[in-house]
Amino acid sequence: MNEIIAKKKAGKKLSEAEINRVVAGVTSGEIPDYQITALLMAICFQGMDVQERAWLTRAMAASGRKMDFSRVKGIKVDKHSTGGVGDKTSLMLAPWLAAAGRRVPMISGRGLGFTGGTLDKLGTIPGYRFDQTFAELEKQLAHTGCFVIGQTADIAPADKKIYALRDVTATVDEISLITASILSKKLAEDLDVLVMDVKCGSGAFMQNLKDAKALAKSIADTARSAGVETTCIITAMDFPLGRYTGNTAETWEAFRFCDADSVYFTTAEKMFITRKPLAREEKLVASLVEVTVELAIAMLDAKSRTNKPARQKCIATLFKIWQSGKLAEQARMWATAQGADLAAFAAKAKEINDAFAAAKATQVYSFKTPAAGLFVHCDSRAIGNLMVDLGAGRKKYTDVISDEVTLEMLKFPGEACKKGDAIFRVYKRSLGKNDMALIDQVGKTAIRLSKAKPRIAKNILARL
Amino acid sequence: MNEIIAKKKAGKKLSEAEINRVVAGVTSGEIPDYQITALLMAICFQGMDVQERAWLTRAMAASGRKMDFSRVKGIKVDKHSTGGVGDKTSLMLAPWLAAAGRRVPMISGRGLGFTGGTLDKLGTIPGYRFDQTFAELEKQLAHTGCFVIGQTADIAPADKKIYALRDVTATVDEISLITASILSKKLAEDLDVLVMDVKCGSGAFMQNLKDAKALAKSIADTARSAGVETTCIITAMDFPLGRYTGNTAETWEAFRFCDADSVYFTTAEKMFITRKPLAREEKLVASLVEVTVELAIAMLDAKSRTNKPARQKCIATLFKIWQSGKLAEQARMWATAQGADLAAFAAKAKEINDAFAAAKATQVYSFKTPAAGLFVHCDSRAIGNLMVDLGAGRKKYTDVISDEVTLEMLKFPGEACKKGDAIFRVYKRSLGKNDMALIDQVGKTAIRLSKAKPRIAKNILARL
Repeated sequence: MNEIIAKKKAGKKLSEAEINRVVAGVTSGEIPDYQITALLMAICFQGMDVQERAWLTRAMAASGRKMDFSRVKGIKVDKHSTGGVGDKTSLMLAPWLAAAGRRVPMISGRGLGFTGGTLDKLGTIPGYRFDQTFAELEKQLAHTGCFVIGQTADIAPADKKIYALRDVTATVDEISLITASILSKKLAEDLDVLVMDVKCGSGAFMQNLKDAKALAKSIADTARSAGVETTCIITAMDFPLGRYTGNTAETWEAFRFCDADSVYFTTAEKMFITRKPLAREEKLVASLVEVTVELAIAMLDAKSRTNKPARQKCIATLFKIWQSGKLAEQARMWATAQGADLAAFAAKAKEINDAFAAAKATQVYSFKTPAAGLFVHCDSRAIGNLMVDLGAGRKKYTDVISDEVTLEMLKFPGEACKKGDAIFRVYKRSLGKNDMALIDQVGKTAIRLSKAKPRIAKNILARL
Repeated sequence: MNEIIAKKKAGKKLSEAEINRVVAGVTSGEIPDYQITALLMAICFQGMDVQERAWLTRAMAASGRKMDFSRVKGIKVDKHSTGGVGDKTSLMLAPWLAAAGRRVPMISGRGLGFTGGTLDKLGTIPGYRFDQTFAELEKQLAHTGCFVIGQTADIAPADKKIYALRDVTATVDEISLITASILSKKLAEDLDVLVMDVKCGSGAFMQNLKDAKALAKSIADTARSAGVETTCIITAMDFPLGRYTGNTAETWEAFRFCDADSVYFTTAEKMFITRKPLAREEKLVASLVEVTVELAIAMLDAKSRTNKPARQKCIATLFKIWQSGKLAEQARMWATAQGADLAAFAAKAKEINDAFAAAKATQVYSFKTPAAGLFVHCDSRAIGNLMVDLGAGRKKYTDVISDEVTLEMLKFPGEACKKGDAIFRVYKRSLGKNDMALIDQVGKTAIRLSKAKPRIAKNILARL
């Protein structure tokens, strides 16, 4: 191991045998942590080429159980995101693609720091189970078309060990390690098609387009070299995605999205079909709608990336499913198959909706802008961290989080605001003076209004 | 700690408070090994400036007991070497400087890998003690003028921990870490004057003059900033130093050096005083003599580095001590004060001398050159490793080594050799066929003869 560390430190390429030996030693516990972290730091400085990344990814995927869904017919597809704020797209995409005839074996994670996690959102639904056996998952995938579970201990254990060490040794930001960590888990899902949503902006790990493109290219190259048809879409993460941030409210928003009579549907119809201007309500959800539909298109047919007729065909298929009520039905079927009590969940969501409707001073607090101007910037990392501080997110993996804390954006990107207008508001059951002071403090630095005409960035920044 | 690692990884300078926190956490065990090694690897890539090195050195020295010899009158001086093959200079320098009125509180180490260690050499003397109390050491320093002991557990414990981790994570070669490791132990000796022998060549860690100069400068700058008057002398380590390699024989050679009637004295007199040509026997020990006398001069007066009259005065003083028999007497006094049974030691050395004199085929084996030529190169690293393989050195710290294995150089650098001439010979009590094969094999690659006139490198390469 000392020699392998020395080799990487000197900038040399590791062989497949060496990488396999490292991953085997990490998995078995034979290599001590202090040697693993020295190697990780050397990789941060010297990097790994595409071949080394592919070897590392495959070795990490092979370190645990690889699911075998060969008995389930159909094209297996998944979407994965690098993590953002207000991002609930997985909850719509799993049933949507299942309704379109794809098979979606989705393994999701918990949120950490300012980014949310799909598992925490689903965890707000009473009864929703994450502890299925493989036989149950296989059956659900064949019959219901999708499942969304958490990472089990037997999937890519080498990644779990390495990730925990990266987290405490300032080695999380290296692109080969990020690539291998993400893809080792995805390869274990036995996928045919993968769509990566690489987030870019203040509320994402990649804060500029150059870094986001480098990561997207690394993931696309590595996943394709492992035989998975892969599309990477770089999407903006400068404002929180959609109207709500907070686990119960985000899940509620996702189910509402799936309904054919929703504002999300009318927004999508205008953006993708009729090209009519959006109403004010629609502008509040436009980013979530655009990103979700784009990801769905890419998941349905990778050719849509470059082939316009293929893209149009995807849009037609997806809208038909949505408008006919099949998407909403599929969402209910899937959640129910995993044990969800949707009536109990609706009651939880109603508590939040009622509180916002009543705008009770004891539970709802609005951040009001101290000056007039156009709403040009919302630091979504600061918003994500505010949610953590209010108890809705984790600082460390063992933290217990509260479901109900919700942040609602009241202004859309670019909107003209008067002095004293509420920009966003927060619901918290036990809202205290300290919470209000914190909301004001974060609002003042995170929200920026401008006199100049805003240049609102696109939601879709690049496709690879 | 994660933030400190990230800061160094980003190439930023650590503050004194941050370095103190790291060293305190290493010493107490609060910082886990995997974070320490990640930081060490980041330091390998980003380095540390002179101020950071000084802070690290001081914090590591302060991590354990700092000796306080303020009650012992006189200038306290020590010499330290970066490690070589056949290097027994400490054994002459400690009594020599003590006889010159200096106080020499010398803490030495064990050998590891191809380099020897002073402690292993002294360990060949029956009765020699390393376990004195501080009160005993203080008394010996005041009355006898010098002591040579090993590093105790309470001296720079942070260095012990860090060194053990560097050893297994390919992080031993970084100059700030080497500097802090060496000097943290020396600062704990409460020194006024330090002379560093920075070895350069095949049998040293620094294999070229550029690297050796960089290390010498780092050590000089850091030690001086801690208030210790410091000279660094870069010396050649391309041939083993002196005639013998092997712990008993080296100690014997050191005591013989101290005698006024020795070949070492006549050699030194010709090299430093009369400038007469050396006899063949004298050429065999010239490198050892030159390096030892140069180190002694620097230890006696740091001004000798640039001031010629000061240098001449040092030479006069040192030769007077040597020629008068005071050096030999002081060497006996010191060893006896530390419990040495010199008569028993002489009997051990006689066994080796007798074997060489008889050249018994069963215990002595000579490497004979397969071709004629001038003796231009001896890879002393290979010689050091041969000694390890023959049982006289350690591969790891816990290895038990044998005292009696001895390698004697029979030709001096540049000497003309005939085909079949013995270049070196080895004594081993239980010499086997495998040993002989190994000696031949190492000899063939380590020894180089040339038809062209040799350019024999100087022994003293630079002074800082």
